[in-house]
Amino acid sequence: MQLNGDTKSRKLGLSSAVSVTVADMSPLHRARLEYFPRLPPILKGAFGWKEGEGTSCPDDAEEIKKYFPNLYGQPSVFIVPNRGGPVTMGKTLRVGVVLSGGPAPGGHNVISGLFDYLYNRNRDSVLFGFLNGPSGIIKNKWIQLDEERIFPYRNQGGFHIIGSDRTKIETPEQFEKVDETVRKLDLDGLVVIGGDDSNTNAAILAEHFVAQNMKTKVIGVPKTIDGDLRNEFVETSFGFDTAVKVYSELVSNLGYDAISAKKSWHFCRLMGRSASHITLEVALQTHPNMALIGEEVMEKKQTLTQVTKSIADLIVERAAMGKNFGVVLLPEGLVEFMPDVDKLILELNEILAGGHLEEDQIIPKLTEPSRFLFRSLPPLIAKQLTLDRDPHGNVQVSKIESERLLIQMVSDELKERSKAGGASCPFSPIPHFFGYEGRCSLPSNFDCNYCYTLGHTAGALIEGGRTGLVATVRHLTKPPEQWEVGGYPLTVMMDIERRKGKNVPVIKKALVDLKGEAFRIFSEQRDSWRLTEDYRCPGPIQHFGPMADSINFTLMSEARDSNE
Amino acid sequence: MQLNGDTKSRKLGLSSAVSVTVADMSPLHRARLEYFPRLPPILKGAFGWKEGEGTSCPDDAEEIKKYFPNLYGQPSVFIVPNRGGPVTMGKTLRVGVVLSGGPAPGGHNVISGLFDYLYNRNRDSVLFGFLNGPSGIIKNKWIQLDEERIFPYRNQGGFHIIGSDRTKIETPEQFEKVDETVRKLDLDGLVVIGGDDSNTNAAILAEHFVAQNMKTKVIGVPKTIDGDLRNEFVETSFGFDTAVKVYSELVSNLGYDAISAKKSWHFCRLMGRSASHITLEVALQTHPNMALIGEEVMEKKQTLTQVTKSIADLIVERAAMGKNFGVVLLPEGLVEFMPDVDKLILELNEILAGGHLEEDQIIPKLTEPSRFLFRSLPPLIAKQLTLDRDPHGNVQVSKIESERLLIQMVSDELKERSKAGGASCPFSPIPHFFGYEGRCSLPSNFDCNYCYTLGHTAGALIEGGRTGLVATVRHLTKPPEQWEVGGYPLTVMMDIERRKGKNVPVIKKALVDLKGEAFRIFSEQRDSWRLTEDYRCPGPIQHFGPMADSINFTLMSEARDSNE
Repeated sequence: MQLNGDTKSRKLGLSSAVSVTVADMSPLHRARLEYFPRLPPILKGAFGWKEGEGTSCPDDAEEIKKYFPNLYGQPSVFIVPNRGGPVTMGKTLRVGVVLSGGPAPGGHNVISGLFDYLYNRNRDSVLFGFLNGPSGIIKNKWIQLDEERIFPYRNQGGFHIIGSDRTKIETPEQFEKVDETVRKLDLDGLVVIGGDDSNTNAAILAEHFVAQNMKTKVIGVPKTIDGDLRNEFVETSFGFDTAVKVYSELVSNLGYDAISAKKSWHFCRLMGRSASHITLEVALQTHPNMALIGEEVMEKKQTLTQVTKSIADLIVERAAMGKNFGVVLLPEGLVEFMPDVDKLILELNEILAGGHLEEDQIIPKLTEPSRFLFRSLPPLIAKQLTLDRDPHGNVQVSKIESERLLIQMVSDELKERSKAGGASCPFSPIPHFFGYEGRCSLPSNFDCNYCYTLGHTAGALIEGGRTGLVATVRHLTKPPEQWEVGGYPLTVMMDIERRKGKNVPVIKKALVDLKGEAFRIFSEQRDSWRLTEDYRCPGPIQHFGPMADSINFTLMSEARDSNE
Repeated sequence: MQLNGDTKSRKLGLSSAVSVTVADMSPLHRARLEYFPRLPPILKGAFGWKEGEGTSCPDDAEEIKKYFPNLYGQPSVFIVPNRGGPVTMGKTLRVGVVLSGGPAPGGHNVISGLFDYLYNRNRDSVLFGFLNGPSGIIKNKWIQLDEERIFPYRNQGGFHIIGSDRTKIETPEQFEKVDETVRKLDLDGLVVIGGDDSNTNAAILAEHFVAQNMKTKVIGVPKTIDGDLRNEFVETSFGFDTAVKVYSELVSNLGYDAISAKKSWHFCRLMGRSASHITLEVALQTHPNMALIGEEVMEKKQTLTQVTKSIADLIVERAAMGKNFGVVLLPEGLVEFMPDVDKLILELNEILAGGHLEEDQIIPKLTEPSRFLFRSLPPLIAKQLTLDRDPHGNVQVSKIESERLLIQMVSDELKERSKAGGASCPFSPIPHFFGYEGRCSLPSNFDCNYCYTLGHTAGALIEGGRTGLVATVRHLTKPPEQWEVGGYPLTVMMDIERRKGKNVPVIKKALVDLKGEAFRIFSEQRDSWRLTEDYRCPGPIQHFGPMADSINFTLMSEARDSNE
């Protein structure tokens, strides 16, 4: 039986004269295969290079220089129209690519963009895809990526063409293994697609290869749905645009559900542990009654009790208007931004360092304020805090389902108020967590184009003999035909942080800028969302039609076009 | 600042010469306002009526006849090209419309379709929207629906234009109030948009009005995302198409996440308590490793332990292949289909009828098998079962988060197997529940067209003086221009059920037909999904482009074109 034009298996004709057997592929999947990403024209032909000035590091310059004696201070580069004669064309290159960390929509397009760049320049170039993340480099596990293998993944979500993991290349043994693999494959370049930690690792590898006199160039590509790999050089990380659009649709649907059924409070936790960019963007897209931004909670030193009370206030105010429904957004990392929870966690880590203890053994060891907080937690959450610990013995804050924690605390607070003579108001909460749903969705046109361009740029940087750079695309709010591409030294984005008792160079995570444009718009509008139902409906991502090329608010409002 | 072409407030020009102030509306919201739903041409001009034969009732005919002495046996009607001369045009009609029960995408289009029908026939006709569900009729709370009020809701999700609730009109006092409202407004007709229970209520109202010699005609419109209001007359309920597409996108994204990160088992509970149509459709769309269908569990009399073991088997088999990840789907009502859980619930209802008891008081009163089951439940779930009870004192099975229950039981089972000498396999499960996210989303083009047509049809039936019918559209898998419209007597779909100790006529819920085409395709394919990762990616709903008019598999495979 034929359903929706699907057939169990069919031949798909390709412009590039390859044909692929496509098993039961959805019509949209098939249509997206045929989408041709938009690309700055400069990447299609001959081009030249323009170097910026030598770079430095805003913080900890001296210490970072010690870690990167060869790469520190190198200039940024821009790909420019070729006025100084033709560039050398057709280098045969052997390049490896690796996906690192959690998936983000668009990863497949970085790979297809990289492949197309190499292949269009020289058909003898070879692209190796390391399997299942950086561990694939250490173990020398890879597949060769050719047109036939890549085609089914063009413009598709997920990282499954080669897989990913979170291995960090740190120990001397690991470096030795990496050297072995890279030499065996005779790699001219390695492209590392990852977040802040993975790009830090890319910089360390780049430095290492130079120090070893190895020819392998390392280029980083900025990935993360969380949006916290962003700075004056990287306007946005890929995947953020798609993920926030997926979450925004869902939150907006819940807003309409709240106002239609008029009886539920939807508490939505959104992915983003270190920074609240996703929550901020989704709030701008959907106009919830309340959105908690971790960075603001931290700046205002708001405690769990204060946040609980502020939500209860909202519920009581709306109840007085006969509105026993609403939408509250919170970022995954919310509780970690609260000074009291942060202190409790630190104390628990200390107390439990020696091994498991029962609650009645733990409580006397806590400071007075932490003891009070610990006792005020819902019993299940308190228990969870003392039981689940990570491999380093630390309390696993990320396991706390903070939307359920807040629901419980708010519910208790409302009961208290009612007992104390306040009006009792019906509170029917529904918890939600949106995260995994957005990491592998079909990339938006923006992410398709951006990633395809990043892939090309990474290829060009390797061909140009550059290393230790992150591929960058500037003026992202303009049409792709006007984008400018190049590379910035990864060292520029670093400072020194203390991790596992050691000073190490790391790329700084970008937190929500409370003085930034996105937060300013949010803080101007949010009061008007509290008591009304000004829910905004962005709808699902459209790949066709007039809004197929729309761009998220955060990028629109905060893109730093440094050259403008 | 202008974001994405949004402005804080702008005037939108309308073809109908109305203009509406649109506050910060998303580009897609705006574009959807301008979508003009496709409609069978017959509804745009003059038409005639063709009556079918008198109808009966397959089950409990005699008893149902007693409840509906006036309406029982009336014929179905079809709207047909007008060969017998022009119909009377331009009746001035006063019609009320009410939304009943949980929201479903497309409700706003039933209302706009009804309004457009009435308004295009006679500009003096009036449409009243009862506020917040059937209680609005009882309380005589309504707004008049005119073009200006309706416009912002055209092709939009949600039920918030007038709201909804679950009030059933049952008591003599309620009927009196309804009569009062209907007389005060001088209603020629009442359109009830709702599920099986609401349509049963519509039939009772229709009979009541005839018995009282009142002129008010009552027409039902089949709504429910669950897809269980379906029979040989109603090919599908509206909202199902959109909701399953929303859930399918999310589940598909989780499949890609599973195969990308290769470390998580996603357990997804999907809305649908009485029937598993949603889970079946989402399975066909996404190809999960396992999908549990409640109706099959019931037919095979599978116990909770058996289902747990079958999931554990899958996990162990995949682990042996190095695959510690996967996707499992289950319907919201799963545990209620299990004979052992069903028995336990019945016993608990009986035992707890007198009020709260502690667990150690409950356990001795249970039968041996129920005691065993109760003890094998995770403690939190067992506690929940004894604590949360509905207003009738019954255990609230719907509150059980069955994906978390199964995760806990499977986890325990895997530990048992490992202790008993089996290989231990990593099991990192993530629970999900998708329901509220799909009830209010932007309706698919199919639901927009279908609902707009249903609204017109309901208007036509009232104009034609028909009552006690459900508006029907046949041949839904064909283009809207070929749809046939009419009405079927609601009594035809009824049988007698025992509720609250009384025999009452109700519209039968359609369970998944284990001999039907959709289940057949599923059962043929599912084995091939277990150990592979044949995840299918339907993507988000597209409102533009080549797949904007696609239709769900269930309807495609099971639409009963009785006239073909």
